[in-house]
Amino acid sequence: MNTGELVDLGQQLRVDSVRASAAAGSGHPTSSMSAADLVAVLLANHLRYDFERPAHPGNDRLVLSKGHASPLLYSAYKAAGAIDDEELLTFRKLGSRLEGHPTPQRLPWVETATGSLGQGLPVGVGIALSGKRLDRTDYRVWVLCGDSEMAEGSVWEAAEHAGYEHLDNLVVIVDVNRLGQRGPTRHGHDLDAYARRFRAFDWHTIEIDGHDVDAVDRAYGEALSTKGQPTAIIARTLKGKGVQAVEDREGKHGKPLPEAEEAIAELGGPRDLTVRVQEPPAARALHSAGTGEIELPRYDLGDEVATRNAFGEALAALGTARGDVVALDGEVGDSTRAEYFAKEHPERYFECYIAEQQMVATAVGMAARGWVPFATSFAAFLTRAHDFVRMASISGSGINLVGSHAGVAIGEDGPSQMGLEDLAMMRAVHGSTVLYPCDANQTARLVAAMAGLEGIRYLRTSRGGSKVVYGPDEEFPVGGSKVLRSSDRDRLTVVAAGVTVHEALAAADALEQDGIQVRVIDLYSVKPVDRATLRQAAEDTGCLLTVEDHRREGGIGDAVLDAFCDGRPVPRLVRLAVETMPGSASPAEELRAAGIDADSVAAAVRMLVEQAIVP
Amino acid sequence: MNTGELVDLGQQLRVDSVRASAAAGSGHPTSSMSAADLVAVLLANHLRYDFERPAHPGNDRLVLSKGHASPLLYSAYKAAGAIDDEELLTFRKLGSRLEGHPTPQRLPWVETATGSLGQGLPVGVGIALSGKRLDRTDYRVWVLCGDSEMAEGSVWEAAEHAGYEHLDNLVVIVDVNRLGQRGPTRHGHDLDAYARRFRAFDWHTIEIDGHDVDAVDRAYGEALSTKGQPTAIIARTLKGKGVQAVEDREGKHGKPLPEAEEAIAELGGPRDLTVRVQEPPAARALHSAGTGEIELPRYDLGDEVATRNAFGEALAALGTARGDVVALDGEVGDSTRAEYFAKEHPERYFECYIAEQQMVATAVGMAARGWVPFATSFAAFLTRAHDFVRMASISGSGINLVGSHAGVAIGEDGPSQMGLEDLAMMRAVHGSTVLYPCDANQTARLVAAMAGLEGIRYLRTSRGGSKVVYGPDEEFPVGGSKVLRSSDRDRLTVVAAGVTVHEALAAADALEQDGIQVRVIDLYSVKPVDRATLRQAAEDTGCLLTVEDHRREGGIGDAVLDAFCDGRPVPRLVRLAVETMPGSASPAEELRAAGIDADSVAAAVRMLVEQAIVP
Repeated sequence: MNTGELVDLGQQLRVDSVRASAAAGSGHPTSSMSAADLVAVLLANHLRYDFERPAHPGNDRLVLSKGHASPLLYSAYKAAGAIDDEELLTFRKLGSRLEGHPTPQRLPWVETATGSLGQGLPVGVGIALSGKRLDRTDYRVWVLCGDSEMAEGSVWEAAEHAGYEHLDNLVVIVDVNRLGQRGPTRHGHDLDAYARRFRAFDWHTIEIDGHDVDAVDRAYGEALSTKGQPTAIIARTLKGKGVQAVEDREGKHGKPLPEAEEAIAELGGPRDLTVRVQEPPAARALHSAGTGEIELPRYDLGDEVATRNAFGEALAALGTARGDVVALDGEVGDSTRAEYFAKEHPERYFECYIAEQQMVATAVGMAARGWVPFATSFAAFLTRAHDFVRMASISGSGINLVGSHAGVAIGEDGPSQMGLEDLAMMRAVHGSTVLYPCDANQTARLVAAMAGLEGIRYLRTSRGGSKVVYGPDEEFPVGGSKVLRSSDRDRLTVVAAGVTVHEALAAADALEQDGIQVRVIDLYSVKPVDRATLRQAAEDTGCLLTVEDHRREGGIGDAVLDAFCDGRPVPRLVRLAVETMPGSASPAEELRAAGIDADSVAAAVRMLVEQAIVP
Repeated sequence: MNTGELVDLGQQLRVDSVRASAAAGSGHPTSSMSAADLVAVLLANHLRYDFERPAHPGNDRLVLSKGHASPLLYSAYKAAGAIDDEELLTFRKLGSRLEGHPTPQRLPWVETATGSLGQGLPVGVGIALSGKRLDRTDYRVWVLCGDSEMAEGSVWEAAEHAGYEHLDNLVVIVDVNRLGQRGPTRHGHDLDAYARRFRAFDWHTIEIDGHDVDAVDRAYGEALSTKGQPTAIIARTLKGKGVQAVEDREGKHGKPLPEAEEAIAELGGPRDLTVRVQEPPAARALHSAGTGEIELPRYDLGDEVATRNAFGEALAALGTARGDVVALDGEVGDSTRAEYFAKEHPERYFECYIAEQQMVATAVGMAARGWVPFATSFAAFLTRAHDFVRMASISGSGINLVGSHAGVAIGEDGPSQMGLEDLAMMRAVHGSTVLYPCDANQTARLVAAMAGLEGIRYLRTSRGGSKVVYGPDEEFPVGGSKVLRSSDRDRLTVVAAGVTVHEALAAADALEQDGIQVRVIDLYSVKPVDRATLRQAAEDTGCLLTVEDHRREGGIGDAVLDAFCDGRPVPRLVRLAVETMPGSASPAEELRAAGIDADSVAAAVRMLVEQAIVP
């Protein structure tokens, strides 16, 4: 398109943003209007995209990091012929695909859910990295950011990653409209403030007037011809551009325009331009071939093996069997044992350094391109990426997260390194699966199983060695559990997972010597839980005692309740969990101090028997 | 101290780090050895600190961001005479104050718990900001960082905040020892890679050889005389410096030295230097005076008021009564209503822009200086700061967090903006208090109450208006609840909080017309819960139906279980919670679609009656 047409298209995108927001009675038209020319030029002259085949491997990828500017995105879809005007006006209504913030769950052209600021660029980096090192097709990734979100550290974590990886297939466009939600941004229209930050992280930068369509066009061209570096285009724009009542004014964020009809007239009235978006080049995504058959590691009964080790070995085996499995780690691969995968499959291993948000975002980006990522760190440090996990779930992203060093059982390193809240965090994620193995064979099986699930899958592993209690051919369905001790004289049921399974077994043995039989359940599938087995145990024994190396809230104790929240009778419940602030001590001392070791379990059972709470 | 003495002191710190780690059988001596000269010069020639009076308002503040280098910190304490050699050798042992990673819960000289990398600088920024704008004393804040942690976005979020605020009382020292946990860092010994990033964020930078004590001394002097900018000293060092077996070698992270005795000899043997640390200057912290008496806003029964509005008004009133209350917001103060405080008390209001990690870190830093911070954002976006909240709890920090826009009830903005996992996250924090008011008068009272509590306090507020159901003189003790409907014919108990209280009341009214009486409990104190009232309800009605605008896991449904986990009989339980992925729709449509509106509650009760699950 030529200059005049581009200007016209920009105005059309503004008009349609105003119309959609007016129809909805809410939304962010002014944030859309600032970036309208930036999007118009991209759509008309640079984006290569087949809207009828969003899965086309050659398609460029467009990420709207400033997700609240969704009216602009949907107006662009309309201009490209992907949606019609009628649908545009369903914006933000019940059942519409056009949500307040875009999500790939509803729209096939959206790469990742946005709306939590500072996440679009990190995921875009993941997609670009996928393009360079996995897909090896030369699509380009375009990310449109707001200026307010530049305050998020995650943006600079992403900038660091992209600069270091020389991602010249990545272009970020920063819509510097000077105004955040509640007033001016830190840097206002100081474009260089942003440019010099990006340059420091080894990006190429271009500063332009974002309403000069020719300058925008040239900037995109320059970005595409820049080699060895990602490019940041820093564009000076005006929020609400084109409508005097709102242009560059405070207090106009996130509201429909007060006089929509007048505003539309001021913008030159409705238009009906259609853009023929460039076809993507022919491309074929390169998924490495795998052997197809997984040969999981096998461990001998009675051996001492850390579940983190079994995880690493199983992941390496999975990577051999499946060419689509990739691994990412946050500079602790020697601890999480992700390094075992790195040694076997270096081309599919991504060192993310100490940057857990970017690690998860990279996984989300790769999952969007069809890869099956496993991202690993200490369980404690995955809390750093909580908001990214939350948004990944809104995207419907299929990623595997593995948190090592669970609980007080890590010992001397102390509470900063202990994952004690991770089960609560991961259980609350919509549609998640939460697995917590207690031995090496179980771990290996669960690693293989989780790769085939939907949504967010979480595996919790332990630092120390634990005895192999299951044979290598035992099966562990997700949603199942294992009854490890059972008799018809069980007086209660101990429900454990991970390290506490071994404590529970030792307690059961000690109690048996006193003539007290208890059932022991290994609840390796924390979500979903095995309702049938828990209900049977409730019926048989009347009391469930949970013991877990996790905070009292949100972990195993709460998980078992999933079996009893439909109005049926609930068994008696007793919880042992970590209710103190641990310090440094040996693993055994930590378990004892937290009251979750074998002696504590046995003592609790004896007390319940003495008090006649259980028969 | 002169050059020779400083060199000697550096060696002593190395020797003591090696000895402490050897005694513990674990720890990070090599990470301590790289920074030993940096700490020696600081301790001997620049730090102003009275170890006998850690609360002295004139004391400089030293933050060990690379918390794993704790042997170095403890060795410095010994050199300063704060601990003796015997205690040094208790490092990492059960009951010792000298944990694997330092925490202020155990040691009075530690400002904030570290061990999760990338958090020391953010908290240091908070302390420095406190010094400049609140305490108005001229202590200096020294933060020692590792190079690996420079990959964390939180470091650049902090750099942005400090540069923008011109914190010339802040000095960060980056110990560039080239080696992370599992191998080389991204930038190795490229000091300029770090320096140009800091410069881009408007810092003064100095690059030095971190083992040249004279250069270090000069750099500290230059930092102290730099005005209007924070200073970053980028120091080239060698990990394991001074012991050939480990110096600058990979694979030596986080382990005692293999041959401790030989290493100590190579370092010149044990020394017993004592440092006379400079006295701090006389200083008096300036806490603004308050009126002392809080005049909370009062709302009329039946009025429609959003709890976020009541929060804002109550916080402003609290700020008038108490001069030590400060407020921080993440660029959404017009939404959270923190802006009401900003208007009344601009000198105690801190705009943190969209940087939730830095916002919480700033709060932690200010709390360390005796202030009572309230930090606000959308509940959904507080997940961004999860790891900071976790570490704040390890610090024993007293901070108030307020999350607005709870749940699907926000309506059209969609799931990215909906706080649906916040209760799970905040309940699992050790020692936390979690409050969730349903009306304006209740909100105001809870805001006043939370300011006086210990630990992490969380208040969840709602976007939309809700009817005032309590009079302005009603009291709401933390740990309490309110029984809003009760009779001797209650067939079950509906437990609700926040927006669902109103849905539950409407359901109770509708059911009453059908002759079905239900009890309704407003569980405004989610943690701790009101065990007595829940137990009475269980005894009287036999069944608890929880209804919440939150995920099924970790929220109200799980919270009520706290009353029944000691082996006593448990009532029947039914849960209504958000189990779908919401889209955009009106608040009423969202509540209905999630199955947590009045009709859903009433339908669930009728079904339980029909199925004879309740009498």
